[in-house]
Amino acid sequence: MNIDGHIRVSIDNVTPEIDCGKYPIKRVENEEILVTADIFGDGHDKVDAVLLYREKTKGKSKEKKWQEKPFTFKGNDKWSCKFSIDTTGFFEYTIEAWIDHFTTWQDGLKKKFDAGQPMETELLIGAQMMEEAIARGAASQKKQLQKWVELLRNNKDTKDSVSLALSPEITQLMYETRDRTKTSRYDKNLTVLVERKRALFSSWYEFFPRSTSPVEGEHGTFKTSEAILPEIARMGFDVIYLPPIHPIGRSFRKGINNATEARPEDPGSPWAIGSEAGGHKAIHPELGTMEDFVSLVNKAKSLDMEIALDFAIQCSQDHPYVKDHPQWFNWRPDGTVQYAENPPKKYQDVLPVNYESADWENLWQELKSIVEFWIDKGVRIFRVDNPHTKSFIFWEWLIKEINLKYDGILFLAEAFTRPRIMEKLGKIGFTQSYTYFTWRNNKKEFQEYLTELTQTEMVEYFRPNFWPNTPDILPISLENKGEPSFLIRLLLAGTLSSNYGMYGPLFEFNLNEAYPGKEEYTRSEKYEVKHWDWEKTTKTKDLIITLNKVRKENEALQKTRNIEFCDTDNDQLICYSKIDEDHQNKLLIVVSFDPQYSQSGWLKVPLKKFGLKDNEPFTVIDLLTGSKYFWENEWNYVALHPQGIPGHIFRIEQSEPDTTKTK
Amino acid sequence: MNIDGHIRVSIDNVTPEIDCGKYPIKRVENEEILVTADIFGDGHDKVDAVLLYREKTKGKSKEKKWQEKPFTFKGNDKWSCKFSIDTTGFFEYTIEAWIDHFTTWQDGLKKKFDAGQPMETELLIGAQMMEEAIARGAASQKKQLQKWVELLRNNKDTKDSVSLALSPEITQLMYETRDRTKTSRYDKNLTVLVERKRALFSSWYEFFPRSTSPVEGEHGTFKTSEAILPEIARMGFDVIYLPPIHPIGRSFRKGINNATEARPEDPGSPWAIGSEAGGHKAIHPELGTMEDFVSLVNKAKSLDMEIALDFAIQCSQDHPYVKDHPQWFNWRPDGTVQYAENPPKKYQDVLPVNYESADWENLWQELKSIVEFWIDKGVRIFRVDNPHTKSFIFWEWLIKEINLKYDGILFLAEAFTRPRIMEKLGKIGFTQSYTYFTWRNNKKEFQEYLTELTQTEMVEYFRPNFWPNTPDILPISLENKGEPSFLIRLLLAGTLSSNYGMYGPLFEFNLNEAYPGKEEYTRSEKYEVKHWDWEKTTKTKDLIITLNKVRKENEALQKTRNIEFCDTDNDQLICYSKIDEDHQNKLLIVVSFDPQYSQSGWLKVPLKKFGLKDNEPFTVIDLLTGSKYFWENEWNYVALHPQGIPGHIFRIEQSEPDTTKTK
Repeated sequence: MNIDGHIRVSIDNVTPEIDCGKYPIKRVENEEILVTADIFGDGHDKVDAVLLYREKTKGKSKEKKWQEKPFTFKGNDKWSCKFSIDTTGFFEYTIEAWIDHFTTWQDGLKKKFDAGQPMETELLIGAQMMEEAIARGAASQKKQLQKWVELLRNNKDTKDSVSLALSPEITQLMYETRDRTKTSRYDKNLTVLVERKRALFSSWYEFFPRSTSPVEGEHGTFKTSEAILPEIARMGFDVIYLPPIHPIGRSFRKGINNATEARPEDPGSPWAIGSEAGGHKAIHPELGTMEDFVSLVNKAKSLDMEIALDFAIQCSQDHPYVKDHPQWFNWRPDGTVQYAENPPKKYQDVLPVNYESADWENLWQELKSIVEFWIDKGVRIFRVDNPHTKSFIFWEWLIKEINLKYDGILFLAEAFTRPRIMEKLGKIGFTQSYTYFTWRNNKKEFQEYLTELTQTEMVEYFRPNFWPNTPDILPISLENKGEPSFLIRLLLAGTLSSNYGMYGPLFEFNLNEAYPGKEEYTRSEKYEVKHWDWEKTTKTKDLIITLNKVRKENEALQKTRNIEFCDTDNDQLICYSKIDEDHQNKLLIVVSFDPQYSQSGWLKVPLKKFGLKDNEPFTVIDLLTGSKYFWENEWNYVALHPQGIPGHIFRIEQSEPDTTKTK
Repeated sequence: MNIDGHIRVSIDNVTPEIDCGKYPIKRVENEEILVTADIFGDGHDKVDAVLLYREKTKGKSKEKKWQEKPFTFKGNDKWSCKFSIDTTGFFEYTIEAWIDHFTTWQDGLKKKFDAGQPMETELLIGAQMMEEAIARGAASQKKQLQKWVELLRNNKDTKDSVSLALSPEITQLMYETRDRTKTSRYDKNLTVLVERKRALFSSWYEFFPRSTSPVEGEHGTFKTSEAILPEIARMGFDVIYLPPIHPIGRSFRKGINNATEARPEDPGSPWAIGSEAGGHKAIHPELGTMEDFVSLVNKAKSLDMEIALDFAIQCSQDHPYVKDHPQWFNWRPDGTVQYAENPPKKYQDVLPVNYESADWENLWQELKSIVEFWIDKGVRIFRVDNPHTKSFIFWEWLIKEINLKYDGILFLAEAFTRPRIMEKLGKIGFTQSYTYFTWRNNKKEFQEYLTELTQTEMVEYFRPNFWPNTPDILPISLENKGEPSFLIRLLLAGTLSSNYGMYGPLFEFNLNEAYPGKEEYTRSEKYEVKHWDWEKTTKTKDLIITLNKVRKENEALQKTRNIEFCDTDNDQLICYSKIDEDHQNKLLIVVSFDPQYSQSGWLKVPLKKFGLKDNEPFTVIDLLTGSKYFWENEWNYVALHPQGIPGHIFRIEQSEPDTTKTK
């Protein structure tokens, strides 16, 4: 029979496991991985299990040796094991479990001894098992086991023998020399992709390089962009994301406010990529040269920031691919190239690539070479434009290829689409994803959404990145409202999610004039060169600076899955706790949703979670203001004013309270 | 690349799928199978999908052709397809999905036409697609398509052409001739085991053949058992389950009340199998001959009943296997054979078989040969004793082997153990399973348990069989209480679950004397020959007769998954609806938990589910008594009395109510 009939232990319902192991789970270096499984044998014998993990073999290299970590029994046949990996790359994990005959015997021995039953034969059974273990042990183990066997066989003092047989030393050595030929192995090797920490913790700032010239009316360049980097660094961001920097098409160029007819002087949308000046590997001539770009990348690095590029696969009708690779596009019977459509709407400035092309392999390779081209220039993060309108298996292939070849390349999926597709993009490899944050407005919506993101399987593969605004979206929550609404959305984005970003300087300048009837900016920067006073300060900018500092100093804000919501007696107040893995950094965050009126209420501190006893006094320090409060009850009062800061980020301290109470 | 780059449609989250398709789902002939999946492509093109199913190939026979059934879009990227299979056996199912370019084009065409855009090129695109389809079509399809292409190319009346292009005839033919080379196929073939109807709907009666002699003090036989079959048939049962009928061991035989020392005249427990008279293929001499047994099997058949045998793998120390196959047992250092233990308790009358034996292959084959031996004698149902103390992979192998070779063999798992193990036994192939019914006592417990059994994945592979008592268990719900408690447990078992059974005649005789301090019968029949008046009638017996008749006449009681609980305003009243697949047979069941006092209250009829409008009058007929009631509201009043029948099984009739109202 094609079965190993000795296998008596079942390993079922393993988590995390995405789509039967088809897709990897995601972690960053040193981030905890909790594996659970139902592990049980037939009958009443004891079982035991270990987690096995190792780096995945690349190409034809030799398989790595498995590392082992013991599982712990959690009740009701559930077992769990926590581990983490301290380097990046693809790792695999699986489970091995077995009937533990020796501890089963020890357990029976003890019960029989306590019941006063004859011990002689019982002890011989144990001695036999140890003799079998001798054959499997290393030299020193053999010697030690042999010594114990002789004691068990010859010692006439039953109590002594039982005590020896149950000793931790024997238990340990019998564990180490256990028979590994009758173990059950879980039938899959599951995969975890371990990425660098920025995959999980990042603060993004998006701006248009062409709007950085100090001279009004002039087109900004990489050089003028370089000049504003120190101000962005001062705001505390670590990823600078630039809309496409490639030559902009002329045909069907869009004018101001997305007009279908552009005037000659209109600069066009950077997302209509490709002209006679080149395609995705070229730079828009007015921005400067490749050297200027590399200089910008290096300047960012020197300020502890990274430049992220936009990877937008669509082409303008002037893109060199249209002539050089016509087979990558669809052609209409009248001989014209097929542009993007959402009938009856036509988007003639953008050509979708045809993923059903017979020449798809060359297309895929060319697209990959674009990514590699910019990696070569020092770019390590890509924000991918509308990935859900391109082939999923292409992305899965591309991201995997890049991950296998390069270390630390991150991809942000700019997909605002249906839930199953958002999930799919996370599963097939995108490091981070845009989310529905932008359209969540009240306490119930946020609690439900964050619960979905952090308490379902999504937490294993979908890393949210919360954006209060983008060049495409001026949400109702900000539209035509005052500065407090910016402060509120900022606090929510930056404390609910460890990855967040904003489109500046419109955000910090509290700009919010909508195009009538749309959730969009009027006179969008997508179609115009703007002039900004990059040094201008606002209260929003000040809060950005403080918030980014608090995020950097507090480990608890550097992951998203650790969120737990707390009760408040006012629906205008949302409250949640965040605690780091080591339970050292304990935060309680409360934000008001009301940009107009003061809101006050009581919130319930999760004392037990914070390691506090009932009625034990504790100190809370508001990290946004430095204010200290001395609390001693479960329920505590807060009042938030839109004219002040509409939120608190409290750090909980168990230390003795200050004698100068403030409340 | 080892990828088909054209694949643009994802097929995810397929249900039902047990442990990634490792285990089959279960159905009976013509029972509905609802398959759902998330199916979506990139971008905005329309997608479509079909379910594929076919009989699984046995051995080396040629693969069967797939049958197709279209999926229906249910919203939010969820698709579903209902199908059923009208013969027994192993079948496989999977999903195929594709981008539907033609209907995408039709949709755009309509929108563009409505918007008054130029149509010429648009119509040519459709004509091109139809020309491509011609190459794939059968002769008659080719001809028809060619005709339409010419019309589209030449007809100058745009409106006519658009109307033709959108016609159902073209849509249908383009569906039939679609390009099947760029479809996505789900990556697994899932399995469904289709069994005969008794797997889902059965009424079991267990008795000890040795207690059937009409003469007090004499050992009953198969002959005397045959004599009581008509009375059991009159009660309406269809499965008769006999405790082991094999020779009973002498060594360490148990006496009355499980005494460790038996008197010479004690008959012993039938579960201590094997003596010098033979083992699992032999018959206990006092019961009669093999011919007598076959005669019993045939007599049962003539009464539309089946004999189920007990398959209990343990052996007594006198079993021929101990001498003939010592390698199948564990041996102690003192040369004695290892008996069952739960330290410090010893069960020296029973030897467990050692599934870790080096000779496991021969052991498995021998055990299989036992099942085949009794199949050969006409047995088609086996009640398996304590399957959870035997190797899971052995059962998986055995049941699959038997299912592949024989049609309609059923296995009931007698496992009262931990939840994950109960589930496992269902997954690995047991047709039906004993359950926790016996220990569920109040409304909340029943609602939770039935929800778990019918609303979770368990419903796909775990068929519950509800027993109010067994020779091993006299539960607290019956212990030392009066007849009403028997009526209550009977109504619950027989209406909550389509499979149920009882241990008689103790149940219908309302016998309930417990062994002090245990949930067991005192003077258990397991260790004694009893004498019963098999013709005796009781109210419980009368209700059994009525209930079994109602179960046979009402399709809605012949499955378990169709249960839905209804609100009542009294926690002593449990109420649930059951409706058959065709929505013809609509039942509302209400049972009181109180064996002592009358209980009354209001219950909420699920009008919508029953196809009734608000305030529409309807008739309810109590199938247990024949009483008719005329109701017209959502909430209705019932009163149940322990001295009457503590439950109603109402059939809902939409017909005009009787003029003679009773209420």
